[in-house]
Amino acid sequence: MTQQVFNFSAGPAMILPTVLEKAQTELLNWQEQGTSVMEISHRGKLFTELSEQSIIDLRKLYNVPDNYKILFLQGGARGQFAAIPMNLLSENGKALYLNSGHWSATAAKEARNFGEIDELNIVETDAEGNLAVNRMDFSDIAEQYDYVHYCTNETISGVEIFDIPNVGNAVLVADLSSNIMSRQIDISKFGLIYAGAQKNLGPAGITLVIIREDLLGKARKATPSIWNYETQANADSMINTPPTFAWYLCSLVFKQLLADGGLDVIEAKNRAKAELLYNYIDQSKLYANKVAKNNRSLMNVTFVTGNDELDKKFIAEALAEGLQALKGHKVLGGMRASIYNAMSIEGVQALIKFMQKFETENA
Amino acid sequence: MTQQVFNFSAGPAMILPTVLEKAQTELLNWQEQGTSVMEISHRGKLFTELSEQSIIDLRKLYNVPDNYKILFLQGGARGQFAAIPMNLLSENGKALYLNSGHWSATAAKEARNFGEIDELNIVETDAEGNLAVNRMDFSDIAEQYDYVHYCTNETISGVEIFDIPNVGNAVLVADLSSNIMSRQIDISKFGLIYAGAQKNLGPAGITLVIIREDLLGKARKATPSIWNYETQANADSMINTPPTFAWYLCSLVFKQLLADGGLDVIEAKNRAKAELLYNYIDQSKLYANKVAKNNRSLMNVTFVTGNDELDKKFIAEALAEGLQALKGHKVLGGMRASIYNAMSIEGVQALIKFMQKFETENA
Repeated sequence: MTQQVFNFSAGPAMILPTVLEKAQTELLNWQEQGTSVMEISHRGKLFTELSEQSIIDLRKLYNVPDNYKILFLQGGARGQFAAIPMNLLSENGKALYLNSGHWSATAAKEARNFGEIDELNIVETDAEGNLAVNRMDFSDIAEQYDYVHYCTNETISGVEIFDIPNVGNAVLVADLSSNIMSRQIDISKFGLIYAGAQKNLGPAGITLVIIREDLLGKARKATPSIWNYETQANADSMINTPPTFAWYLCSLVFKQLLADGGLDVIEAKNRAKAELLYNYIDQSKLYANKVAKNNRSLMNVTFVTGNDELDKKFIAEALAEGLQALKGHKVLGGMRASIYNAMSIEGVQALIKFMQKFETENA
Repeated sequence: MTQQVFNFSAGPAMILPTVLEKAQTELLNWQEQGTSVMEISHRGKLFTELSEQSIIDLRKLYNVPDNYKILFLQGGARGQFAAIPMNLLSENGKALYLNSGHWSATAAKEARNFGEIDELNIVETDAEGNLAVNRMDFSDIAEQYDYVHYCTNETISGVEIFDIPNVGNAVLVADLSSNIMSRQIDISKFGLIYAGAQKNLGPAGITLVIIREDLLGKARKATPSIWNYETQANADSMINTPPTFAWYLCSLVFKQLLADGGLDVIEAKNRAKAELLYNYIDQSKLYANKVAKNNRSLMNVTFVTGNDELDKKFIAEALAEGLQALKGHKVLGGMRASIYNAMSIEGVQALIKFMQKFETENA
């Protein structure tokens, strides 16, 4: 295999090459132990050091305030769709779910199994036919709810919400699965944020939860102990065996992002990548992105030619040139280029070069 | 690092060296894709082939009857401690938990959060002062319960239950985390078996559930969808992103076990390893194992010198000679050699050689 490939998978997504290379080098012999990091006790000295350092690094990288606990759990964001109401929705309480697309709606649907949920659609098609977020102030209604949930980036449609909704003094909960650590956010505005790892943090199979300490201890009795936030906070996320290899890879990602200059540097790079691609799409006569400019995702850039057959041809020919996983989600069709932290500017440039060629050939 | 090491960790435990070597070789370039197996969509053709083949291999290797579904989930056995009552315990029903040690008791404790649980202690100290299972027939009481749960191997004490309890027509559920696929079992006797992967199947972070089809569809409404057995069976364990890299490693383990001749060969090897070690302990004047012969675990061999200081010295000196992770669980102290499928006979021989030397030096 000599072809240079660029992997635009929406998730599980590409991982920083330096991280995978390090993992490969030490896969059979970690820390000169003669064993793999995945073959040792999570309660031993070496893994404890790894897990503790990963939390120090994450706290520094993401400016996590001192009154927040950092948990590494299992079950993905979908697991948290259940864990959040089990932990935060009181017996007679209700929660508000802001719907901005597929994933926020799926979170609301799951939460309904555990209590009373109100839903509010916050995305509409604007005058230009583009998806746009139409409301960000909920301070008039939010405080009647145990919490307000939203999704900061809808991976399927490529809609990102950059501002933080105003919920007054209510508890704000957010799914950051597909844009976590792509840019700095003010964590102090949130009660809880969570993310499956497989876009920006590491491999599938580990889930990050960052929770304000005053929200611990509210879980209902029938909460699985591995998802009881207080239990897991008290056990340093090790009430049971954590996914140690996935955690290790996350720890390497954090170290690399710090070495690369932290999230301000990452954000500038992500903005540059996205701008390049959206600018190209906007001036193109063939491709269109159907998201309002203020809500265009920095992570998932969706585009269509307006012709399903041509979309298929595009995806196949791109793949033949090493531009992988550009097929849009089956719900929407078209194309999607996921350009998470690990995607290089060279990958975006290669994509644009191909798009130009394809446009010329199919004008 | 030139010293030969043998890793007796109870879990996360050693993985077959050939599997780790293959994983290392193809970590950056799987199936000539130019990407890692952990960087691709679980819904794509290549990962679908991997997951389907892994189930075919597992079915063959473990003689899984056609009317059983095989699920790969997240959350470990501890997650299943909650998922089992959520799926199988009816509104007004109760379940019977057979307690044989730490893990079966922990399963019962978790289940109590979800319904009515009866517990029955089935291990006692016999006339020789050894732990022994004292009852295997529950056919007189079992059928009043929605299910009967037990643990086939108690990792901490090293107590293994080889016969299958008689529960009449009741549904038998078993935690096989620490002896799954160490020998053939008659799966048709069970309604459900489950195991965290990190002893015999692969790395931590993936959980195997094998469930008889007629038990699907009984989950209560407030069951997280990622643990709803029917939902996951219908979605081929992919209602959400599965832990793809962990699944991949399990698939390599299954292939290797098949290539090695299947579970009859593995069982013979496991029996030979355990026999060697127990025989040595029994003839020794220094070491003792406190489990009745019929219940001695083939996987976790516990032993003590009877002197805590000497135990500590043993563990430290063994480690210096490359014999790792021999410290017993903190609940029991002493030593524990976990000799799962991946441990070679050479590892056991090296351990015995060291034990002999240590006995001579400390007589």
